[in-house]
Parts: sequence; C-alpha cells; structure tokens
Amino acid sequence: MSHYRVEVRVKPRPGLLDPQGKAIHHSLNSLGWDGVHDVRVGKAIYLDMEAESEEAATEAAEAMCRKLLSNPVTEDYEVSSVESVASAS
Amino acid sequence: MSHYRVEVRVKPRPGLLDPQGKAIHHSLNSLGWDGVHDVRVGKAIYLDMEAESEEAATEAAEAMCRKLLSNPVTEDYEVSSVESVASAS
Repeated sequence: MSHYRVEVRVKPRPGLLDPQGKAIHHSLNSLGWDGVHDVRVGKAIYLDMEAESEEAATEAAEAMCRKLLSNPVTEDYEVSSVESVASAS
Repeated sequence: MSHYRVEVRVKPRPGLLDPQGKAIHHSLNSLGWDGVHDVRVGKAIYLDMEAESEEAATEAAEAMCRKLLSNPVTEDYEVSSVESVASAS
C-alpha cells in the first residue's frame, strides 16, 4: 500500500443556478473588476489515502465522488490530480 | 482584451480545523473507505474574465483572492490555471 494525495474538484453543472458564484460575481464588479463576466464556485476536496496503485487511488476517488462527494443531478466531478507521497508507515 | 478562464483554489490552512472535511472523512470511513486518512475541503472558483494578457489575468485573480475570495487568516489560495478562450466580442 502506498500513500496518495488525491485532489478532486466538484463543480456546478453548466446552466444550473449558482447563487454563491452570482454573489461573488456581483461583489467583484462592485469592487471595480468589471472585466469579470461569470463566476462559478465549486469544491476542491483533498484526500490523503492509502491505495495499491495510482489507478486504484483514482478509481476509489471516483467512487467516492459518485457515492458521497458530489450530487450527480447538479454537479460534475473530476479527479484532478493523484500524487504519490512518501508513506509514513 | 482577451477572454480568459481562470481557476482559483482556496484551501484551509494546514493545522486549522476543517469541520466539513472531518465530516466527509468520517462518512467515507463509515462507507468502508478505511484507507482515507485525512480530508480537507476548499473552494474551486472559476472566473470568466477579460484581461490584457495571461499575466494580467493572473495578477487580477490574485488580487481578487486577497481582497474577497479568501480569508487570509484561515485560508491559502492558488491560481491554478489560466486558459485563453476565443473571445465572443
């Protein structure tokens, strides 16, 4: 078993309302950043885990996304990086 | 002016309590993913904006992080990607 640091991103689906993004968008415009046209806010989830291989870590993270980390109706997920780290054990 | 898609990640600082991450960690362990040792939850923010150049877009996004998108006491931020997209105008 090796130790992996996995990064997952969960993002609101295109076209769906994102009130948090809208609020940030308005605030940025009020602060003078007029060039900002759209803001979407998702989650970045960082997992420290043991797995047999990089592929196994990716598969586990995708299963976690389907089962717990994302809402399949409103969100898309992506395993954006899997990095092996020196195991402490 | 060109059109850029900028991605920013805001993450709780190491060592600081992250209750949302802890809740997800416990849920993952309960669902049988025993290999997960730690979970941290941050924000992934996607900005669509106009800027003179890639450097200008990055600098603007960093300024937004300092001023609005992150809490400098509890969070770290990172501009993780800046991508030029075909301008609609």
